[in-house]
Amino acid sequence: MSIKRSLLAATIAGLCSFSVSAAEKADLMITDAMVLTMNQDKQVFEKGTVVIKGNQILAVGDQSLEKQYQAKKTLDVDGDIVMPGLINTHTHVSMTVFRSLADDVPDRLHRYIFPLEAKLVSRDMVRIGANLGNVEMVKGGVTTYADMYYFEDEVAKTVDKIGMRAILGETVIKFPVADAANAEEGIQYALNFIEEYKDHPRITPAFAPHAPYTNTTETLQKIAKLSLEKDVPVMIHLAESHREEEKIAERAEGMSPVEYMDSIGALNKNLVGAHMILVDDKDIELVKQSDMGVAHNMSANIKSAKGVSPALKMYDENVRIGLGTDGPMSGNTLSTIDEFNQVAKVHKLVNKDRAAMPPIKVIDMATMGAAKALHMEDKIGSLEAGKLADIIVVDTKAPNMVPVYNPYSALVYSANSGNVRHTIVDGKILMKDRDMLTVDEDAIRKEALEFTKVVRETVIESGEVVQ
Amino acid sequence: MSIKRSLLAATIAGLCSFSVSAAEKADLMITDAMVLTMNQDKQVFEKGTVVIKGNQILAVGDQSLEKQYQAKKTLDVDGDIVMPGLINTHTHVSMTVFRSLADDVPDRLHRYIFPLEAKLVSRDMVRIGANLGNVEMVKGGVTTYADMYYFEDEVAKTVDKIGMRAILGETVIKFPVADAANAEEGIQYALNFIEEYKDHPRITPAFAPHAPYTNTTETLQKIAKLSLEKDVPVMIHLAESHREEEKIAERAEGMSPVEYMDSIGALNKNLVGAHMILVDDKDIELVKQSDMGVAHNMSANIKSAKGVSPALKMYDENVRIGLGTDGPMSGNTLSTIDEFNQVAKVHKLVNKDRAAMPPIKVIDMATMGAAKALHMEDKIGSLEAGKLADIIVVDTKAPNMVPVYNPYSALVYSANSGNVRHTIVDGKILMKDRDMLTVDEDAIRKEALEFTKVVRETVIESGEVVQ
Repeated sequence: MSIKRSLLAATIAGLCSFSVSAAEKADLMITDAMVLTMNQDKQVFEKGTVVIKGNQILAVGDQSLEKQYQAKKTLDVDGDIVMPGLINTHTHVSMTVFRSLADDVPDRLHRYIFPLEAKLVSRDMVRIGANLGNVEMVKGGVTTYADMYYFEDEVAKTVDKIGMRAILGETVIKFPVADAANAEEGIQYALNFIEEYKDHPRITPAFAPHAPYTNTTETLQKIAKLSLEKDVPVMIHLAESHREEEKIAERAEGMSPVEYMDSIGALNKNLVGAHMILVDDKDIELVKQSDMGVAHNMSANIKSAKGVSPALKMYDENVRIGLGTDGPMSGNTLSTIDEFNQVAKVHKLVNKDRAAMPPIKVIDMATMGAAKALHMEDKIGSLEAGKLADIIVVDTKAPNMVPVYNPYSALVYSANSGNVRHTIVDGKILMKDRDMLTVDEDAIRKEALEFTKVVRETVIESGEVVQ
Repeated sequence: MSIKRSLLAATIAGLCSFSVSAAEKADLMITDAMVLTMNQDKQVFEKGTVVIKGNQILAVGDQSLEKQYQAKKTLDVDGDIVMPGLINTHTHVSMTVFRSLADDVPDRLHRYIFPLEAKLVSRDMVRIGANLGNVEMVKGGVTTYADMYYFEDEVAKTVDKIGMRAILGETVIKFPVADAANAEEGIQYALNFIEEYKDHPRITPAFAPHAPYTNTTETLQKIAKLSLEKDVPVMIHLAESHREEEKIAERAEGMSPVEYMDSIGALNKNLVGAHMILVDDKDIELVKQSDMGVAHNMSANIKSAKGVSPALKMYDENVRIGLGTDGPMSGNTLSTIDEFNQVAKVHKLVNKDRAAMPPIKVIDMATMGAAKALHMEDKIGSLEAGKLADIIVVDTKAPNMVPVYNPYSALVYSANSGNVRHTIVDGKILMKDRDMLTVDEDAIRKEALEFTKVVRETVIESGEVVQ
């Protein structure tokens, strides 16, 4: 080293030690992390650092950040993967209490699920099921989810308690359900719920018309109008089944479900369409023009043999699209990490191309894509300064995760929900080393198991509903 | 209760208390278990007991067994699922050290994997990779696996040490590889290995001709003859790819790979064919006549976009067929539990029928079906008195596993490898509450990570092989 150089080095060292004493204050610093930012450039910091203050990300970068910030708490993750929290764009969280019932019944929604719900959906059921599903999601690295169900104010209380982020859509459907006698009552229920939660920092209330064919044109139009007035999302099952396709074609002169929604003025930027299996190029064009979001639920869609959504095509054409699990009677799990494999591989299979749907696209659809689908990309979906601190840490020491030459491959082809080590939402650690910190997991499981006795008595033992 | 009845009850109670003192001795008793026997009748004991003595199952039944046997050790599993250990019918365990490299390269075997192996396969690599893969399998509930690779005597040492059961097939291939300059040397290597391990209680040595098109007719015939003489299995990649189909059609007047193998006298009861994607009804008829076994590797087959084997049809026609993961560069995990979901759902998708491939068939293909594929159904694959004690316990308290109305559904649609709590092989507990008892997991991981440095230097940084 020349004298000049060593002088320079000394000066830099001096500056550094000075900067330590004048380090900016932070609340939490995650160090020794393989950081997948999922920002525009898909930047990766192999020895990275994430700095959090309050509920926001203050800085993301390499090890040098450790000297620039002084945090109250440090989480040294020893080389593990640190990435944005997963965003589950479509589920019915409370249905956990029905999971593993009658999985393979043909025409299951109408023959099994609607009758089951008519008997068993209640405030208690919704709360108990949501508590269980929330724990499953936090343990599986899901930090934000979008839900469609009944008594969503009950779901909201569970989300508030555990500390997650959610868009909660109150169902509107034309037949009598547990919390409304008809669509009009459903809309009123939703309006009250929206009023109650419109200012919650982590919960976004929403409308959830069940599907086009289970609602009238008038209802769908009214909801579209109200959603724009209130500026809240509308979530709907769309282009999901042949039954829907036929019913809508009858109603609307042979139109596809997407064309129909567009024709009645209900396809807009507030809409999130779940499934979107039966869409052609014309439909995709309408989706793009509307700026709506799409929830891609591969695992549920192939379980029901409904088919494979052209989700990869939509992604490549810059549609707002992200991964969802669907409800636990359909998926049957609630963390998209357990579906990464299926998403990647089934798109390869149907495209007859092993290079189709590479892991980085799957991870993008699980994070930024999902944020875009929910129109939340300015707040979540990537690790960038100024975004909300929704972050997960994935174990790279479990034998299935060794080695990690390519972190996207490891996550998509090898990881499972059990590999999520820590989950942080809004700057707060909700799970640390697999222990839940904000709720009592054992009590939640026990309450759910208690409720399954009611389910068994009502459904299985009576033999009234197909098992 | 009548007097007669209460007298009878008293007498029975007396007999029972008598039977306690004269209880038969056992080594291990698993109690409070939801036992899936996977026997012929698919018997389930909701509050069941499994009794083990030495390396064998002594009894399987309800709670009354607790009074009939006195065991040195009791494992109260608090209602968890107890089932036969999973049998992985096809893998290349040592390739763990290459996992997550170049996953999506077209024509990957020839463009990437063979060149990679030419540079890096060694005794050390085989041992290090097998140690890591064995831990992954035990932690994922795999108790027996069938391997095809090089230096199988090294794999054997790792299997012996950890305490698993395995069929280990030494590769024979026509070009020079790490442990043989040509097929003839490969056969000799295999013969020496067979001689060394033929009497091992848990290891079955075998021949593993790589594929029909990567060996000559003479080699395949010689191996078929030797395998019958030595009474050892022959494992081969069969009807896997269009390249193979074309090469064999050129060689053998338009025959399919299965027809060709039959025509040269190499399709027999000792054979286990992996993949079997490109088989038609005529091929399936030959498979049935030969009594050969089939390894169905759904997850690897769809990842490479090779297609979907008509495995369900073969299963329904009583072909000996079981699940396999393929190697960790292909699968990319080593426990079939992480593939149950894909197996069930992709068969539903391609059959356009949600009732196709119900969970009970998937579990059968993971246990008894796999045992049959390896011609080991008299020893393993179900929980029955007289069989070897290869048993796993699956957690039913993890949030993704709650509730369990149907244990087969819960295992197939909800479980992942992290839900396996205990793994027992040959009557010995290899993993208890996720802790490895017979090997040092940390040391194994560290050795594997050390080896990845060599891989990175040789392969990635040199840029010589496609990344």
